[in-house]
Amino acid sequence: MAKDKGSSFNLKTPKGTKDWSGSDALLRDRIFTTIANVFKRHGGTALDTPVFELREILAGKYGEDSKLIYDLKDQGGEICSLRYDLTVPFARWLAMNSDVRSIKRYHIAKVYRRDQPAINKGRMREFYQCDFDIAGAFDPMVPDAEIIRIICEVFEELGWTGRYTIKLNHRKILDGVFAVCGVPEDKLRPISSAVDKLDKMPWADVRKEMVDDKGLDGEVADRIEKYVMNKGSRELLDSLLKDEALNANASAKAGLEEMALMMDYLEAFNVLDKISFDMSLARGLDYYTGVIYEVVTEGSAGVQADAPEAQKAKKGKGKLTEDDDRSNDPTLGVGSVAAGGRYDNLVGMFQPKAQIPCVGISFGVDRIFSITKARLEREQKADALRKSEVDAYVMAFGGKGFNGMLKERMEICQKLWSAGIKAEFSYKLKPKLPQQFKAAEQGAIPFGIILGEEELAAGKCRIKEMGLPEGHPEKEGVEVDITSLVSELQTRLAKKQQGAISSLAAQLQGTSV
Amino acid sequence: MAKDKGSSFNLKTPKGTKDWSGSDALLRDRIFTTIANVFKRHGGTALDTPVFELREILAGKYGEDSKLIYDLKDQGGEICSLRYDLTVPFARWLAMNSDVRSIKRYHIAKVYRRDQPAINKGRMREFYQCDFDIAGAFDPMVPDAEIIRIICEVFEELGWTGRYTIKLNHRKILDGVFAVCGVPEDKLRPISSAVDKLDKMPWADVRKEMVDDKGLDGEVADRIEKYVMNKGSRELLDSLLKDEALNANASAKAGLEEMALMMDYLEAFNVLDKISFDMSLARGLDYYTGVIYEVVTEGSAGVQADAPEAQKAKKGKGKLTEDDDRSNDPTLGVGSVAAGGRYDNLVGMFQPKAQIPCVGISFGVDRIFSITKARLEREQKADALRKSEVDAYVMAFGGKGFNGMLKERMEICQKLWSAGIKAEFSYKLKPKLPQQFKAAEQGAIPFGIILGEEELAAGKCRIKEMGLPEGHPEKEGVEVDITSLVSELQTRLAKKQQGAISSLAAQLQGTSV
Repeated sequence: MAKDKGSSFNLKTPKGTKDWSGSDALLRDRIFTTIANVFKRHGGTALDTPVFELREILAGKYGEDSKLIYDLKDQGGEICSLRYDLTVPFARWLAMNSDVRSIKRYHIAKVYRRDQPAINKGRMREFYQCDFDIAGAFDPMVPDAEIIRIICEVFEELGWTGRYTIKLNHRKILDGVFAVCGVPEDKLRPISSAVDKLDKMPWADVRKEMVDDKGLDGEVADRIEKYVMNKGSRELLDSLLKDEALNANASAKAGLEEMALMMDYLEAFNVLDKISFDMSLARGLDYYTGVIYEVVTEGSAGVQADAPEAQKAKKGKGKLTEDDDRSNDPTLGVGSVAAGGRYDNLVGMFQPKAQIPCVGISFGVDRIFSITKARLEREQKADALRKSEVDAYVMAFGGKGFNGMLKERMEICQKLWSAGIKAEFSYKLKPKLPQQFKAAEQGAIPFGIILGEEELAAGKCRIKEMGLPEGHPEKEGVEVDITSLVSELQTRLAKKQQGAISSLAAQLQGTSV
Repeated sequence: MAKDKGSSFNLKTPKGTKDWSGSDALLRDRIFTTIANVFKRHGGTALDTPVFELREILAGKYGEDSKLIYDLKDQGGEICSLRYDLTVPFARWLAMNSDVRSIKRYHIAKVYRRDQPAINKGRMREFYQCDFDIAGAFDPMVPDAEIIRIICEVFEELGWTGRYTIKLNHRKILDGVFAVCGVPEDKLRPISSAVDKLDKMPWADVRKEMVDDKGLDGEVADRIEKYVMNKGSRELLDSLLKDEALNANASAKAGLEEMALMMDYLEAFNVLDKISFDMSLARGLDYYTGVIYEVVTEGSAGVQADAPEAQKAKKGKGKLTEDDDRSNDPTLGVGSVAAGGRYDNLVGMFQPKAQIPCVGISFGVDRIFSITKARLEREQKADALRKSEVDAYVMAFGGKGFNGMLKERMEICQKLWSAGIKAEFSYKLKPKLPQQFKAAEQGAIPFGIILGEEELAAGKCRIKEMGLPEGHPEKEGVEVDITSLVSELQTRLAKKQQGAISSLAAQLQGTSV
């Protein structure tokens, strides 16, 4: 919104969009870097697709959410729409490039949805997704397990240790459960989507929806309850593997066997303790065919992420905090910060001959950003909220007739830049020393380089670490030769970086839970 | 284009757009990182604006190029258009945030133009710009000189040393020259845009356009010739400072004095030798009010960038190679890879009370990418053209009854990932050893980690550096304890990185000119 009235322009960004600047932009950028580094560590290669696609590419992929797609105006030529997610463009790319038979690709980019925005809840019309997907026909559950490992690495490196849980389920198990309980074929998806609401509604309400709205037999619903209210880990799986009714169903049997394989692999990847096998997880999108997962956190409320038991204890409350409101991304559930699964048939929708199975994960960065920022603010980690990352501010002072030493300041900056040191100086010809100190302080710049006329004549200047307490031996700075300024400063920067918590990961992991 | 016919979908990206993947995406990403690092070194902070703006924000900013703006369809609500550049959104942001009185901002993002695409010449409808701008009222030419220094750092770090020239001129000098020569007030901009064509047309053609098409007096044109055909450095400036006619014109005098100051500052920043004071540089956009500059290269043809003398010698040829064709970006001139200048009045177009002077630079990344890629291919720097950056491929082998050691490979990968090492393994249960070697070779992965049943039982595995010549003492790999695998591999990776040319800068700077 324009802060100044009386303009002839409507000075604002379009509804549901915003500018990102200052410390917010820097923090979000560090989250992107953290996530991209994990993706690269697993051999991910970048794919960048156009922000708009031919409209027919997006048609028929999003069900009733298709009404939220932004269309470009017909200005002659092709009819295009802004992308709604990063998955369909990836599938389109795979279908086009049928020589690619396997790939790990990542894509960090904006997507567009003409949804009703709720900016204070983080629901925007333009927002970022960070996706990693593995395409290719491989032995069962191996890439699926690596995706779960990737999820864990991302949240561990964001400093969320102990604050997140990966809910895991399998579409084949769910379909088998519904069949065994007696859900008619044509009610499978509606009943599945009712079950998916168990994270925000008590069972009684979900049962009501099944029976009253969707015409399910009440006894069938009661049988479903006995399955979908379960969550746990290996012990749950073991008990299901002994369930004769389930094992008699081909779909459930296949799903349970894959889940057993998955847990073996998660153990080898040392992340089995991060998942909760949650039989109520169904996920909204139709195209999932295998494992599905969703990452939940209560980080924004500063509460430890749910252990399966804790989750069970809270079930049925049906009460939402503001943070728990529906995510921006309809493919993300309540309070979830990442979600994904296996989709083996999507590419074939574009090109049957190019069919290729896929499994992937999408991180909801805006939500991760909000939770991270709230925590940094609460814990007053000012360092993480700086607007820039400048290392040194080059300043000068002098007595009567002082000429400002602009060129000298420029020459010193030039030396620092050439050595890769981030440096600034005042653009005034004759800046006052307090002004220069203020600029350095406002930027939270750790070092001042102070030029005085007499010192400079002797080939010297002063390195002053900002914010040292009174009485510190270097409070007034240290005089160094200009010729050794770069190395002296580099030594101090390295020491400061080691001593302080420098990376986002370290900053966030070091915080109290 | 779909490689497989018979699809019911039109499998392609929209006209003038393309997907970026594999080594192209990786190389472009490294160029972005190089540029962003320079921006941050100068205290730049990121600004990210929405990809579309209210249509009225863009209206009246681009002259007749406004017809190239992409509009969103009216689906109810606000009328929006895709951004055409990053400068107008920046000015809109400054006008909205009138409490910001000074900022160094950078923005690396896509812009959109419904131009006739010429993909093989790199002219696209969706393309990236990398912008750095300094807003604020400062002492004259100080931030302007820092922008020139930034340009030099970017191209030096891209390895273009000796291959680029920054053409520099000043709108006030140009306006003064036109006034002194007798150009009528109403012909100033048309004559200026004719002069701007001197980089692709001989003087005779430009004169013809001035006289025949734009109705300029032939004698006036001849007087203009004597000025605008000059290029040089301080000596040219000195001769102009002695030109009585010019010094009698207030605009020219102010421009010349600012140019003198600029050269002083460029000397302090150690980049004066990188510029060519080129009096024919006029730049297309109307909004420039002070210094203007454009970076030219002949890097794509492998030829040394023009020294002022060489440029002079070639003048008047008027012949274009394909590489010299008009850039994608109409704001970039022939063969130019970056351009910018001072624009003191643009923000005031949005909000007179928020008026704030600005100076900036925009890098044409697509062109920089094409030139860089052509050079790497020519010089066969395969390393720079890898698709991913994986450090190690974990593989296993065994004799009869070999179980594939999948979980063991997973566990080793898990250890490597936890140590931050980029690693992959085969997703097959029982992969054959040659298949695994082939995968490592195809990915240009430098190290193989080889698990054998007997070795593993003894707590050992083998590190094999890929591609060692026959007879090398470590050709068959080195056996190490599993417990010291991470440190042994890290040591080798560090050594390889030091020995090899690892950064893009080093890679490119190390190449022959």
